[in-house]
Amino acid sequence: MNKRKIINDPVYGFISISSDLLYDLVDHPYFQRLRRIKQLGLADVVYPGALHTRFHHALGAMHLMGQALKALQEKGHMIWELEFEAAQAAILLHDLGHGPFSHVLESVMMPGVAHEDVTLVLMKDINRQMNGRLDIAIQMFNGTYPRRFFHQMISSQLDMDRMDYLKRDSFYTGVIEGSIGADRLIKMFDISGDQLVVEEKGLLSIENFLHARRLMYWQVYLHKTLLSAQAMLTQILFRARELTAAGHDLFATPDFARFLYEKYTLADFDSQPDLLSSFNALDDNDVWASVKGWRLHSDPVLSTLCKMLLNRQLFKIQFFNAEPGEEILGPLRAQLKQSGVGETQIPYFLIKGETTNSAYAKEQDPIRVKMKNGDLVDIADASDIPTIEALTKIVRKYYVCWGKNVSLRG
Amino acid sequence: MNKRKIINDPVYGFISISSDLLYDLVDHPYFQRLRRIKQLGLADVVYPGALHTRFHHALGAMHLMGQALKALQEKGHMIWELEFEAAQAAILLHDLGHGPFSHVLESVMMPGVAHEDVTLVLMKDINRQMNGRLDIAIQMFNGTYPRRFFHQMISSQLDMDRMDYLKRDSFYTGVIEGSIGADRLIKMFDISGDQLVVEEKGLLSIENFLHARRLMYWQVYLHKTLLSAQAMLTQILFRARELTAAGHDLFATPDFARFLYEKYTLADFDSQPDLLSSFNALDDNDVWASVKGWRLHSDPVLSTLCKMLLNRQLFKIQFFNAEPGEEILGPLRAQLKQSGVGETQIPYFLIKGETTNSAYAKEQDPIRVKMKNGDLVDIADASDIPTIEALTKIVRKYYVCWGKNVSLRG
Amino acid sequence: MNKRKIINDPVYGFISISSDLLYDLVDHPYFQRLRRIKQLGLADVVYPGALHTRFHHALGAMHLMGQALKALQEKGHMIWELEFEAAQAAILLHDLGHGPFSHVLESVMMPGVAHEDVTLVLMKDINRQMNGRLDIAIQMFNGTYPRRFFHQMISSQLDMDRMDYLKRDSFYTGVIEGSIGADRLIKMFDISGDQLVVEEKGLLSIENFLHARRLMYWQVYLHKTLLSAQAMLTQILFRARELTAAGHDLFATPDFARFLYEKYTLADFDSQPDLLSSFNALDDNDVWASVKGWRLHSDPVLSTLCKMLLNRQLFKIQFFNAEPGEEILGPLRAQLKQSGVGETQIPYFLIKGETTNSAYAKEQDPIRVKMKNGDLVDIADASDIPTIEALTKIVRKYYVCWGKNVSLRG
Amino acid sequence: MNKRKIINDPVYGFISISSDLLYDLVDHPYFQRLRRIKQLGLADVVYPGALHTRFHHALGAMHLMGQALKALQEKGHMIWELEFEAAQAAILLHDLGHGPFSHVLESVMMPGVAHEDVTLVLMKDINRQMNGRLDIAIQMFNGTYPRRFFHQMISSQLDMDRMDYLKRDSFYTGVIEGSIGADRLIKMFDISGDQLVVEEKGLLSIENFLHARRLMYWQVYLHKTLLSAQAMLTQILFRARELTAAGHDLFATPDFARFLYEKYTLADFDSQPDLLSSFNALDDNDVWASVKGWRLHSDPVLSTLCKMLLNRQLFKIQFFNAEPGEEILGPLRAQLKQSGVGETQIPYFLIKGETTNSAYAKEQDPIRVKMKNGDLVDIADASDIPTIEALTKIVRKYYVCWGKNVSLRG
Repeated sequence: MNKRKIINDPVYGFISISSDLLYDLVDHPYFQRLRRIKQLGLADVVYPGALHTRFHHALGAMHLMGQALKALQEKGHMIWELEFEAAQAAILLHDLGHGPFSHVLESVMMPGVAHEDVTLVLMKDINRQMNGRLDIAIQMFNGTYPRRFFHQMISSQLDMDRMDYLKRDSFYTGVIEGSIGADRLIKMFDISGDQLVVEEKGLLSIENFLHARRLMYWQVYLHKTLLSAQAMLTQILFRARELTAAGHDLFATPDFARFLYEKYTLADFDSQPDLLSSFNALDDNDVWASVKGWRLHSDPVLSTLCKMLLNRQLFKIQFFNAEPGEEILGPLRAQLKQSGVGETQIPYFLIKGETTNSAYAKEQDPIRVKMKNGDLVDIADASDIPTIEALTKIVRKYYVCWGKNVSLRG
Repeated sequence: MNKRKIINDPVYGFISISSDLLYDLVDHPYFQRLRRIKQLGLADVVYPGALHTRFHHALGAMHLMGQALKALQEKGHMIWELEFEAAQAAILLHDLGHGPFSHVLESVMMPGVAHEDVTLVLMKDINRQMNGRLDIAIQMFNGTYPRRFFHQMISSQLDMDRMDYLKRDSFYTGVIEGSIGADRLIKMFDISGDQLVVEEKGLLSIENFLHARRLMYWQVYLHKTLLSAQAMLTQILFRARELTAAGHDLFATPDFARFLYEKYTLADFDSQPDLLSSFNALDDNDVWASVKGWRLHSDPVLSTLCKMLLNRQLFKIQFFNAEPGEEILGPLRAQLKQSGVGETQIPYFLIKGETTNSAYAKEQDPIRVKMKNGDLVDIADASDIPTIEALTKIVRKYYVCWGKNVSLRG
Repeated sequence: MNKRKIINDPVYGFISISSDLLYDLVDHPYFQRLRRIKQLGLADVVYPGALHTRFHHALGAMHLMGQALKALQEKGHMIWELEFEAAQAAILLHDLGHGPFSHVLESVMMPGVAHEDVTLVLMKDINRQMNGRLDIAIQMFNGTYPRRFFHQMISSQLDMDRMDYLKRDSFYTGVIEGSIGADRLIKMFDISGDQLVVEEKGLLSIENFLHARRLMYWQVYLHKTLLSAQAMLTQILFRARELTAAGHDLFATPDFARFLYEKYTLADFDSQPDLLSSFNALDDNDVWASVKGWRLHSDPVLSTLCKMLLNRQLFKIQFFNAEPGEEILGPLRAQLKQSGVGETQIPYFLIKGETTNSAYAKEQDPIRVKMKNGDLVDIADASDIPTIEALTKIVRKYYVCWGKNVSLRG
Repeated sequence: MNKRKIINDPVYGFISISSDLLYDLVDHPYFQRLRRIKQLGLADVVYPGALHTRFHHALGAMHLMGQALKALQEKGHMIWELEFEAAQAAILLHDLGHGPFSHVLESVMMPGVAHEDVTLVLMKDINRQMNGRLDIAIQMFNGTYPRRFFHQMISSQLDMDRMDYLKRDSFYTGVIEGSIGADRLIKMFDISGDQLVVEEKGLLSIENFLHARRLMYWQVYLHKTLLSAQAMLTQILFRARELTAAGHDLFATPDFARFLYEKYTLADFDSQPDLLSSFNALDDNDVWASVKGWRLHSDPVLSTLCKMLLNRQLFKIQFFNAEPGEEILGPLRAQLKQSGVGETQIPYFLIKGETTNSAYAKEQDPIRVKMKNGDLVDIADASDIPTIEALTKIVRKYYVCWGKNVSLRG
């Protein structure tokens, strides 16, 4: 049977699955699960087109990896067929460890567990099933493969993951200012001493890439309305756990129930073999189905929050440059009390948070530019104006969100 | 409060909500539910980008309606502000009556109930809540408003519904050949004797529109793999009903359970007032969550089908020009039996179906072209080659799909 | 020196020049001349964006050839590196023989000389300069290379020439309905018995391609306004020749003068070696510069026509289904006489023409579809509706154009 | 006759000409001339798609003006129909004063004459022909109209001119990183105290706009290869003037000849009434036709330069951060001498230049942001990171270009 396949993709036109291994990985239930996990979680409350999945993103990143490796080959770098396939496999699987509504859910259910670590557990499990066909891919993923640039293309400040998600998120949200010239960037890639570098004439393209990333952060990933919806879902999950802990009975899909009653650590994946299969059964539908079920629950906090989220009656939210104190929170608390929200219920309807972003982190593995004279220079030093320098500034914003029109009065 | 709003849309750039009424309709829980119902149901098994919702489609159709009405105004046709808003409201709400996986679910749960009729029930319910602000919109929707062209723009062979869905489905699937020149078509609209007509110089654009529609049918809506997935979901639902009817206990989300145990008719919406709210609680998540729950059920037919659908191990499918007889079905049945599928289980794993399509139905309300000499001519007669005539041919295809690698042996 | 190069192309993103030979061909003055010859001649009188050149089109066709050959290689067909390069070279050079405003100018200056024949003369000349590096490319171009599919990809009803020009012309005119899915078509290519064929599942894409072609013909290539402008330029050139023949002195760029005073045949390229270099010096600028110079000439016919064309005061034009007779022409002639146009001048201001088009010519080398059962079928027979059959109809239209507001009265 | 018209535009889809006045202006020969003047002069030596004209750009800017004014109206600002039309007229005509290869030609033929001043002369001339229908448009253009924002939308750091050219140049070059979100920017416009301002939530969009502008400068407008071609054309024109001044006979189109023999000032347009019509007869074709004619001239400097430019054998060019001295120039001069270039000929083959750019000029009329609290703030102060500040830095680069492979030896 011919396992080569071509998949339509509005972003790149067509994505080719170019080997049997890749085909088998796409076909694997762990990977098919990603069809049911949206890349941007709740972002469609702001951008109704932002419904693309981690499945599609992973395929896109695999496509870009193929393009990038071909570009490097055309510049004369030797890349073995096995390495080519392994790099594509690694980027294809790099998001396996994400649960639904990743950042929200993990903070409640598996606090402190990095999704990269779960990915590694899952990759190893597939590798076992496939008798070691993922050995090199796993080395590339965890950074132990000798030729360092493969890892950098999988995970760094200029990796295929970021390239695809910026391009894809910009495309599906319709925030066209966040669009990047991935094609051109890729053609500017080179290798120097086994490190991924960018040719000097790609300098403006990287600047553009970093600016696009900053824009996407504030316009999309940290959009006020999205932060508000995320805060609400977080509170819903906290309340659900609180109720189950207190012995209340809660509707939940079978897969989700387990995670509602327990908190798990990374070590649990080893000690409880069936945890892996439970995790792999989770997707967005469990969360939504539960939220929908809970809107009918007798607990007014839980049902109110669920109804509001479902009907997109979101908390009001406001940003602050400094941490907001009682002069802000006091009046809001008073207002909630007047609406019938009790003292112990207030934390569910008045949330304080903070969020930070810097478009380029200089202290991390830097983006290296190969100047025409052969020097390797950090991108922040290569630009002729201090614009990249400006992008390294960490911007911190505080926010308060609250249920303005909530009423808990019988 | 300013209720004007602008929404990002990858297809048109931006969609404006241009009045308070429209804003309130978008905000209504009945409409917000459409956020959770995908326009193309299971089509993402073939086209992973096809995840757009009826919510987004309805906004897009409202946008096109606004564009089209402006174009008519610029040609000197008087359209009152109230009519303008009503037409936008009507098209915005035209899909309210769709349930999740519409064609699949309705055939099982509410056979014989047209979604347009449910839409009308829901529109009337909102109208009641809003004290008659939808009176004109409802007249336009059901065809009783005197100026006939409004209804034609909402529901005909050249309505805003089709224009948006062709454009949007083509965009999100990545099937670019299905893209239509909606902008140009709209600029070719005119009114003659209260009928919607198209200027003669728009003739080629309509030809293109009909060809694109035909292409989308065979390439997307009736794609073999999609038909196969739909057949599987249909069998899953039949089996679930059969089991519940036989007294078995089945996991189901609260909203969905009711529909699993009963069949409803349109009249029930009148006699059982709470049916409306149950219907409005249904969305894609209920179906997926149930399918996921059922994959663990003790019934091997149900659990096998659910696992296969979730992991995208789809039935094999083949098209035929004539109805396939025993020479086709016999060997497949034998093969299934060998895999351990019992006699009574076979109908769940071997499905015969047919599907038809004609790109342009001449006997229906035709697309009228206004020739330069003022004559109104059916598009099929206006073209200089018999290509539209060709498109009126009804193409019928038969198919058989079966679980090739199914094994029900313990 | 590294001769590999990447060129920005709004249509495909980037075009790579993938070998030294191709680089040298692009660099050749014969090819650089195509930078100054617009693909669509006067079409910007209707579509102001239609300014793309034969240079850009040739690069695009070379790009598509590369994509198509790679697709064939991936299907297991052996294509030698030399063949790959030769096919790209042949399609790159396929338009060398075009002069400025090709169809207009050739009909006046070199009647009966096919541009393909001039291309061959020029290819052979370059081949001589390059010591035979174009031997295979020339065989592929003129159809003598044994593996027939190469020629079919260069020149047939589904060649890279048409694919690029449809896509490019649609892009630059903004007539998006003419856009074709070149990417998908190319992936559907296959070879059977050294013939180019298309897989059955590409059937709808070819239908779409043929419909797009038909649309582009009537919407762009044979647009009324463009036909009118072409008729005017034709009359300008006829008048200029008439005046020079009568001994009048006419401004002309040095390169153009020669062609104003003489008519050439294909044989002249052999007997007059310097004709080649004169021909290669001609481009759009010569024509426009001459028209601009002539607007000041003392001959009222010439100067009037030139001024009108420059200021886009075009002849009025009307289409007819049958050949227009005196009932049409008589009144127009009378009208022109009243405006001071003399009897002998009338043919310059009243032009009768006809134009025909069929989207698919069945009697030519047909487009072959490889059915799933292995049969090769003409596309017109493979479709399930008679739409391709409809496209084989030859549509003939007659037109009359005339200088409605011309005034030759002193 | 209905003068409303719709023009296809690949950038915006369709451009409407919405009034008789605008139609008459588009029809005017002064404006039609812009069809023959490319927006980016010689840029197609780098970007073969960059052939769009000032005609198309002007239509695009008029379109954006219409969109922007509608957005302001929708926010409740009163704009009279006459103002609306005048603003569209003014931006439509804003580039009338450009000659072919504007910056090159003007520096040689009309040094010190700003094209804005010539535009004003031409607008006044049309206004005279049209009996004052352009009175308001002229006031808006020259900044004397009381409502200041109209002028700012025509000419400022955030005007419709820049918006269209960035979008259009990015589109036609294929440099997609330079693309801006014009739609969104326009929706962020507001008026405060008769000044054009931008809403705070448009801040990131303006940052993006300024970054795109910087990128387009270095990637396109000041691209090395383009600077080299411009330097060559400049030298060609200098040499041509030198030869005519020395009494040599030179081929030239009639329109161009006048400018070859004389230098003009702005005052000459008043004193020599026919200068206006000579200027309006000039376009790109004159320059190219002359360059083509001169390639056959007996002067080796002139003919060599012309042949090189026509065949795209461009000067080599190198950038420097500081002004290059004899250590750079000396060896190049020696090399040229060895190729047979005489002492007096060297300035034609060895050119030193400099170029500067800052993406945002703070000292000029700043871009004003209206903060949520109502304050008006310079964009450079409104951003939360010093990135705009970085963009105010003036970047200066020096370059040397020289004819590396020139040979003037007989």
